[in-house]
Amino acid sequence: MEIDYSNIRVIGFDADDTLWVNETYFREAEEKVGMLLSHFETPNKIDQELFRMEIKNLPTYGYGIKGFVLSMVELSIELSNGTVSNKIISEILRIGKDMIDKPVQLLDGVEEVLISLSKDYKLILATKGDLLDQERKLEKSGLNQYFHHIEVLSEKQEANYQKLLNHLDINPTEFLMIGNSLKSDILPLINIGAKAIHVPFHTTWQHEKVERNATNGLNYKTVKSLREILNFFKQN
Amino acid sequence: MEIDYSNIRVIGFDADDTLWVNETYFREAEEKVGMLLSHFETPNKIDQELFRMEIKNLPTYGYGIKGFVLSMVELSIELSNGTVSNKIISEILRIGKDMIDKPVQLLDGVEEVLISLSKDYKLILATKGDLLDQERKLEKSGLNQYFHHIEVLSEKQEANYQKLLNHLDINPTEFLMIGNSLKSDILPLINIGAKAIHVPFHTTWQHEKVERNATNGLNYKTVKSLREILNFFKQN
Repeated sequence: MEIDYSNIRVIGFDADDTLWVNETYFREAEEKVGMLLSHFETPNKIDQELFRMEIKNLPTYGYGIKGFVLSMVELSIELSNGTVSNKIISEILRIGKDMIDKPVQLLDGVEEVLISLSKDYKLILATKGDLLDQERKLEKSGLNQYFHHIEVLSEKQEANYQKLLNHLDINPTEFLMIGNSLKSDILPLINIGAKAIHVPFHTTWQHEKVERNATNGLNYKTVKSLREILNFFKQN
Repeated sequence: MEIDYSNIRVIGFDADDTLWVNETYFREAEEKVGMLLSHFETPNKIDQELFRMEIKNLPTYGYGIKGFVLSMVELSIELSNGTVSNKIISEILRIGKDMIDKPVQLLDGVEEVLISLSKDYKLILATKGDLLDQERKLEKSGLNQYFHHIEVLSEKQEANYQKLLNHLDINPTEFLMIGNSLKSDILPLINIGAKAIHVPFHTTWQHEKVERNATNGLNYKTVKSLREILNFFKQN
């Protein structure tokens, strides 16, 4: 079935792994921590435990690099039975600061798509994570000029999007969300009657994965690269 | 000189130490860390070094509890010359989680003032710090219903407020900000032509202090308690 985008007035973009590389940096950091802790546990076990620790701390720390670093410090103490060296903990803090200072690497086609869509639509950035991290990345990206508004959400659930739409004073049918996470950028939007286009990134954090059958019967498009989106709008 | 509030359409409230207790919890945490590190350094020196570390890390971590905890961990390693125990680092992580989980303690008169002003004005919360922390505190406070909008700013400088006013689509002369920090809640507003009322809190973080002469000739009111604000509006 063709999806009709003719009502759309505002387009929301996810940021991490939709506009720029993010998850890759977390994976790299996890690998480095795995190396640092490698004489306490096997790489597999460290991976599992790091995920468990992050999920345990998510309600307290939320998303973003700082909570991730705090979880890694906590894990290093736990996995080493309280014997990890100050040197390793300092290294973990350093890995975190390096993540924060990483340059922003735009994904293919991003600027072209934003230039084109910003002519006819109000574009907003709707991201979750740490406010300062996200503002800094937007600044470094040079993409600020295309967005009317940046919205950092503490969670990306139906209620958060509903509030955002109220704030933008538009109907769900007038909003299109574009992002790489089925769980955060697609399903909640479809469920509140908005439109969504899925642009998968090659790496997905376990926490963002959903069962295939959670999406059964839901009406959204998947594209291989951001650039493909322009086709739908040229046809309208 | 009497200040004329008759143009005001939107009133912004700072949150921490204006609506609820905050700085007190940071001071308590610092004292606890001071005790934990007391056999490495004198309390005075620890205080100084903690402040230095926080300021050093502020561009990287921003405001909020998580950055504060990361700074405390880094300091404990530095002050101990790399000999601090895992037990003490765990204690520091625990102090941080306890800060995040603290109940919200409203300051005197807050609810009365919000009930009264929300009848005639659009109220917004304009706070800096960690998005998740601030949303959680607002939730716990029960004050959500009085605010049209919560705005968490990564910094509270003139440009940030200017952007907020553009977003609210109002003139500076139609905006009044109420808060405890001269540096963050008062001076930038006066400088962009908005109004501001200063409600001092008994404790001010060193970083938020300004020289008395920075405020010379600037036109804002100072009140002893939030409740006093109602007098200005009853007179209008």
